[in-house]
Amino acid sequence: MRMVDIIQNKRDGYALTDKEIEYFVSGYTSGEIPDYQASALAMAIYFKGMNDSETTALTLAMAHSGDMVDLSEFSHTADKHSTGGVGDKTSLVATPIAASLGCTVAKMSGRGLGHTGGTVDKLESIPGFRTEMDMNDFRSAVRKSGLAIIGQSGNLTPADKKLYSLRDVTGTVPSIPLIVSSIMSKKLAAGSQTIVLDVKIGSGAFMDTLENATALAEKMITIGKAAGRNVRAVLTDMDEPLGCAVGNALEVKEAIEVLNGRGPSDLREVAVTLATNMVSASFGRDENEVRAECEKAIDNGSALKKLCNMVEAQHGDAGYITNPSLFPVAKYAMPIISKTDGYISHMNTMKIGISSSMLGAGREKKEDKIDFSAGIEIMKKTGDRVSAGDTLAILYANDESLIPAAVGKYEEALQFSQEPAKRKPLIYTVMK
Amino acid sequence: MRMVDIIQNKRDGYALTDKEIEYFVSGYTSGEIPDYQASALAMAIYFKGMNDSETTALTLAMAHSGDMVDLSEFSHTADKHSTGGVGDKTSLVATPIAASLGCTVAKMSGRGLGHTGGTVDKLESIPGFRTEMDMNDFRSAVRKSGLAIIGQSGNLTPADKKLYSLRDVTGTVPSIPLIVSSIMSKKLAAGSQTIVLDVKIGSGAFMDTLENATALAEKMITIGKAAGRNVRAVLTDMDEPLGCAVGNALEVKEAIEVLNGRGPSDLREVAVTLATNMVSASFGRDENEVRAECEKAIDNGSALKKLCNMVEAQHGDAGYITNPSLFPVAKYAMPIISKTDGYISHMNTMKIGISSSMLGAGREKKEDKIDFSAGIEIMKKTGDRVSAGDTLAILYANDESLIPAAVGKYEEALQFSQEPAKRKPLIYTVMK
Repeated sequence: MRMVDIIQNKRDGYALTDKEIEYFVSGYTSGEIPDYQASALAMAIYFKGMNDSETTALTLAMAHSGDMVDLSEFSHTADKHSTGGVGDKTSLVATPIAASLGCTVAKMSGRGLGHTGGTVDKLESIPGFRTEMDMNDFRSAVRKSGLAIIGQSGNLTPADKKLYSLRDVTGTVPSIPLIVSSIMSKKLAAGSQTIVLDVKIGSGAFMDTLENATALAEKMITIGKAAGRNVRAVLTDMDEPLGCAVGNALEVKEAIEVLNGRGPSDLREVAVTLATNMVSASFGRDENEVRAECEKAIDNGSALKKLCNMVEAQHGDAGYITNPSLFPVAKYAMPIISKTDGYISHMNTMKIGISSSMLGAGREKKEDKIDFSAGIEIMKKTGDRVSAGDTLAILYANDESLIPAAVGKYEEALQFSQEPAKRKPLIYTVMK
Repeated sequence: MRMVDIIQNKRDGYALTDKEIEYFVSGYTSGEIPDYQASALAMAIYFKGMNDSETTALTLAMAHSGDMVDLSEFSHTADKHSTGGVGDKTSLVATPIAASLGCTVAKMSGRGLGHTGGTVDKLESIPGFRTEMDMNDFRSAVRKSGLAIIGQSGNLTPADKKLYSLRDVTGTVPSIPLIVSSIMSKKLAAGSQTIVLDVKIGSGAFMDTLENATALAEKMITIGKAAGRNVRAVLTDMDEPLGCAVGNALEVKEAIEVLNGRGPSDLREVAVTLATNMVSASFGRDENEVRAECEKAIDNGSALKKLCNMVEAQHGDAGYITNPSLFPVAKYAMPIISKTDGYISHMNTMKIGISSSMLGAGREKKEDKIDFSAGIEIMKKTGDRVSAGDTLAILYANDESLIPAAVGKYEEALQFSQEPAKRKPLIYTVMK
């Protein structure tokens, strides 16, 4: 078998065989197949696509290219995954709810890059919290609290790691089969039986239309089921930030607010929907019943308690969860003041994510350091009535020099109108 | 400027700007742009093509990526280039004719690879003949005889060298703009004012249809003219080998036969047509008049004399040209005997090239050594009547063990019919 023939077959529109796909993935992982052949194949896949059977084979080969997390000692394992957005702290709310209702959540999360944040960074704003653990410590944390969230650990999906960074610099990111296999290989390797996907749609998301998001979700469900997992997808809005906080400690505090029964209703709604699907898929239970229990887990404090347990089991200071005022506040707070009377008609959410990143809350490059207290607190969102002089948002930074450019970027993100703007649906649909 | 944006622009079907193309070519030549981005771009070009202005920019940037041969001291410089075939020894016939009629031919040729031979290998079968020369020795040989043929020398079109080997292993060879820019960048860098392209069509050629060959030729003419050169293309048949000899010394002997007024008429006809176009384009002269002079240059021996002059100026033993029986003959000669009564209806010419290569006359890999006396003498060609027991061809080798596989490959190449087969046109058209 020769890699050049595999490239040519795909280029000419043929479906690749399982053997060809396995040959590619194992050769690429071992380094025998060079990057320049992998990128040519990725570009051919961009143009010619892959059918379900090819995408399944690619996903499985990538999932098995490294270690597979063994969660066999646990029951009702449930994972969630977001395709990424701005102000998306749902993991911090949904997973404690699901764990408090009996799911075992042993989750690996990513770090922020570009305009999107990462759960691991957010958790690290809690003093002492450890996101780097070996598999034994990870499983022992899960045993203690039923819920643990760590960073990518061990040699998980090395094929995806290589291919993902290659795609990033070769114009081959926006290809459904490649996105599907990248996400699903990681989720399969991470070991949970139930996987709930939060597929974001809008100006702060990978997918900008319901149509594309539906296509992506369908494929992910098909592949996950073919691999014997229980998969659901919740399609949610990312055409404005979720909740009001963007930035690591700010988002943790907002998540705690919601778990205390306060905080923004959009965040609560998305988190409850995700938790409902994790639990009802895991236990095969009625969704309305489960949803009521999820709401109750917030209202009676059991979800918040679960979060505290997790923080303790991962060596973090749970005092910050019970008393969020302990989180340090950034030195500088710069309000954005409206010059307009009218309505906010659109928020370019990616620009808001970039603005937050410019304040020090995110990374442009992998090596960049995060400033946990930097970020944005949003006062006015899409559809809100504003008057000249109103505070639209407050930008937080510890380095004053970063503020002017971030202000400019935030202002660029906003559009105003004289008529009330129609809000997008918060939750489009749930797919099974 | 970022390479990933250039890749994405092409992927999305936009025309690249001159600046983008120059950025790519200079960065790729210097090594700043890695192979994996170049191969992704090549695949995007395969799918999305390039317009004339992009192809011109790519060709010029590649031509200027290294040294440009300075032929300014010479007048009426004329080059020819074949897109490659089997038994294609026309350079050895056409260039002495053109030089004997006043053209200055300072030509760089390639070596054989795969199923096609290379003029440099053929010339090296003449004892002493030097194909490796620096630019000063090259120009001094041209001054002496008006005709010199050497291998690629100096740092000519390094961008093309890198991109060509990359395309070979990434499934991006069959792309018209990439083929055009590869051929034409080399020809532009090689410095001649007139360029006559022999675009081959058929089972032994790159292009298998008249349509594709016409498209390729049109583009090459457009690009060459945009660069201020005088370009013509002759579209010729390669659906059977040209002439009867395949293999290095065998082909040199056949070329000498033609320059002696004997030998196969198809080879003479193609060579005279190419020489006619080199001379008439160079001098702006009437083609019928020039053609008559080309025929005369064969008949009065002046073209053969020119070949002798060249061989002498390049330190070869011209005694071999005047007395070709000096060429060593291979140790083993194996006839292929017809088992069929009927007609040869088709010759898979690539397979015949491979058969010759298997006998030792060619290379599979760049490092392979050539056996100059190995090769094939063809007795029956497409359309010929054959009877069982007739000799169809004779295979020559110095290593007996190579013969059986080469015989099998040769037999595979032949198709027979009971009806006389229609021959393809030898010369399809001349494009200017």
